[in-house]
Amino acid sequence: MAKDTAGPLRLLRETHEERVLAVLRTQGAMTRAQLAEQTGLSRATLSSIVQHLLAGQALTETGAEEGASRGRGRPVTVLTLNPGGGLAVGMDLQHRAVQVTVANVAHEIVASTGIACSERTPWARRIELASELVESLAAANSLSLKALAGVGVGVVGPVPETGGHPATPEDSPTRAQGKQSKTHSRAARSRLVHDGLAERFDVPVYVDNNTRLAALGEAIWGAAAGLQNVLYLRLSYGVGSGLVLGGHLFSGAGGAAGELGHVSVDPEWPPCPCGGRGCLERYVSLGAVLEECGFRQFDEVLRRLEDGDEAVRSVIARAGERIGTVLAAACNTVNPEMVVIGGELAAAGDVLLDPVRDTVRKHTHSQVRRGLEITPATLGHDDAARGGIALVLRRSALLAGYPAAPADPASGARFHDLG
Amino acid sequence: MAKDTAGPLRLLRETHEERVLAVLRTQGAMTRAQLAEQTGLSRATLSSIVQHLLAGQALTETGAEEGASRGRGRPVTVLTLNPGGGLAVGMDLQHRAVQVTVANVAHEIVASTGIACSERTPWARRIELASELVESLAAANSLSLKALAGVGVGVVGPVPETGGHPATPEDSPTRAQGKQSKTHSRAARSRLVHDGLAERFDVPVYVDNNTRLAALGEAIWGAAAGLQNVLYLRLSYGVGSGLVLGGHLFSGAGGAAGELGHVSVDPEWPPCPCGGRGCLERYVSLGAVLEECGFRQFDEVLRRLEDGDEAVRSVIARAGERIGTVLAAACNTVNPEMVVIGGELAAAGDVLLDPVRDTVRKHTHSQVRRGLEITPATLGHDDAARGGIALVLRRSALLAGYPAAPADPASGARFHDLG
Repeated sequence: MAKDTAGPLRLLRETHEERVLAVLRTQGAMTRAQLAEQTGLSRATLSSIVQHLLAGQALTETGAEEGASRGRGRPVTVLTLNPGGGLAVGMDLQHRAVQVTVANVAHEIVASTGIACSERTPWARRIELASELVESLAAANSLSLKALAGVGVGVVGPVPETGGHPATPEDSPTRAQGKQSKTHSRAARSRLVHDGLAERFDVPVYVDNNTRLAALGEAIWGAAAGLQNVLYLRLSYGVGSGLVLGGHLFSGAGGAAGELGHVSVDPEWPPCPCGGRGCLERYVSLGAVLEECGFRQFDEVLRRLEDGDEAVRSVIARAGERIGTVLAAACNTVNPEMVVIGGELAAAGDVLLDPVRDTVRKHTHSQVRRGLEITPATLGHDDAARGGIALVLRRSALLAGYPAAPADPASGARFHDLG
Repeated sequence: MAKDTAGPLRLLRETHEERVLAVLRTQGAMTRAQLAEQTGLSRATLSSIVQHLLAGQALTETGAEEGASRGRGRPVTVLTLNPGGGLAVGMDLQHRAVQVTVANVAHEIVASTGIACSERTPWARRIELASELVESLAAANSLSLKALAGVGVGVVGPVPETGGHPATPEDSPTRAQGKQSKTHSRAARSRLVHDGLAERFDVPVYVDNNTRLAALGEAIWGAAAGLQNVLYLRLSYGVGSGLVLGGHLFSGAGGAAGELGHVSVDPEWPPCPCGGRGCLERYVSLGAVLEECGFRQFDEVLRRLEDGDEAVRSVIARAGERIGTVLAAACNTVNPEMVVIGGELAAAGDVLLDPVRDTVRKHTHSQVRRGLEITPATLGHDDAARGGIALVLRRSALLAGYPAAPADPASGARFHDLG
């Protein structure tokens, strides 16, 4: 099988490509020589990557720059990201809001905006709202949607397959009684979102769960930027997670990977609509925590924490311990480099995270906790929309694959974790 | 980024390639027309795959076969696996035995054998034993080791990186006091195994944890043959697991993915050498179960089960429940299609597996348990050796990668779980 022959090398090269883009993104235009110095890549590797990025219109090459060190033979030219290389739109259709972000092929966020909506806002209307936001962003920033490569959109709930091929109700029955209709509505919703946006923009549309897309966003632009193995946990009205493994988003066999909100904290505790008992979500969701603290808004909880309210602090700490227990098991399973914690609850900071860290440290194998970092998310409301952008940039034909390369087990080794 | 542009299509094609090989392996020689029918692949896809397999010497093409349906124009030829296309050796250096298996590039197992050793047998000696077994197998089956593509070898304990580049002690400190020396010896052992075998056979050597390799073996030849997302749990003197995700072996950031034996079953329970408390391994390892039953050999336990010994049955059932609790959390994390249970304890059959299944069903999200199968392993002592063979066949240059192909989001979609 060729998997591990070319696959690992391909991943390695793509990581190098990301490094090149990152340097240009953060430090601006530079010569090949400067780029080689900054990325630490060999001239040979760099030149094949630059050639590829130029072909993919992610970079542009311009004439010599003042004071640019002169290379042997060929005239010195300067490489810059090509903002006109194409556009990718990311959307996040949340329970209470619609978020839209636009980026260019160089991964530069061009514009971002959001609008609140009610939980009862029909999905067709949310799609319309998102589309209008895209068009107004384009107009305001004089972007041509002719350059649109695709739309990546996050929706609530499991999405069995990314790429706008949501499971039909027949595909996804669920054993939990009374959930059939919910599964049905979810599948119908994903289809509606995909078809509606594909029809409106006439580009490929990729639909995925928005927590999963937030994980991808954090692994590219956020707290885990550049890391290959990341577990993202979102603590909001629902508790869910997304996994980036070996640099790629992982959905699991049925699109339900990362259902940490439904890991049982105590089998003796009450049943959960998911069919389980004592699920984490019932004890640490935003709603559960607010109820336990006796407040309506989490801001109030945060204020009490600042005032040193011991009762509130102990509620948050207990939540942290329960979260830590579940995270420890998940970390022993996938051995991530970093756990990123997002969602409203993360605003409690170390009052929440320290108990999480202590519990995870206590209950993970030494090899698993070694070097494991548990840190708050750094992206804002557009985390999932950014993940949607990543889907488009990775899937679209804007950047074609590398030509086949010879096997290189040594350099491939690091990537064996994903074959 | 090109990841999802070419990556998924590559994975898709490799799965097709495996399908072609599987059909030829199970049904013998056939024409392209028959192969297309059997695999359900389009003529175009099939022809590019066949062309590639012929180039890689995995297949040979021979003259027309009696009664073979005549295709338009070109003469009908018959495709068969090419047993002479090359050899791959898999080894498993276990605590108490050394196992060696030889296969050809067509994934056909040519020969397999094993030899017992003592836990105190030095590793250098185990390497020698394994090497001698390879040479005697080659002689007995008149195989030329000149055709050897590589050796894939399983060892006990975490192996940070596959490919024979084990972590040095400096790379892998561990926070657990008193484990430094163990980490050191493990790293030294992997290096010894790699260097010893590379020197002896002068081919690439890939070293990985043998439980992980057993998982790969089961996912290719065993209970989970052909499945993409598999969790393999080994219940022996130690309790460990291996993950095949998206068709690939997954090791995690530090090579410690699948440390389910060290998930805490009860935080109040005694400390474990790993640094945790109440780790599953302390309660369901072969040693723990034998002690609880008051026997020396597991055969005795199995006899008592046959005789309907209720005390023994309840010990096994309780172990099953504890295993189920940990598996449920792991399944909610990675959402596998199948859980394969191996190791001596699996011989208890449904007395163990039914409580495991019930507990997993109770504590997994409906989307996660939907279609999840929990089944005993079907490979024997050579499971990890077979996994080693898979490493060689996937890594070796025998089968080069496909030429770059255009992006195809639709066909790529199913593989989005791994990018």
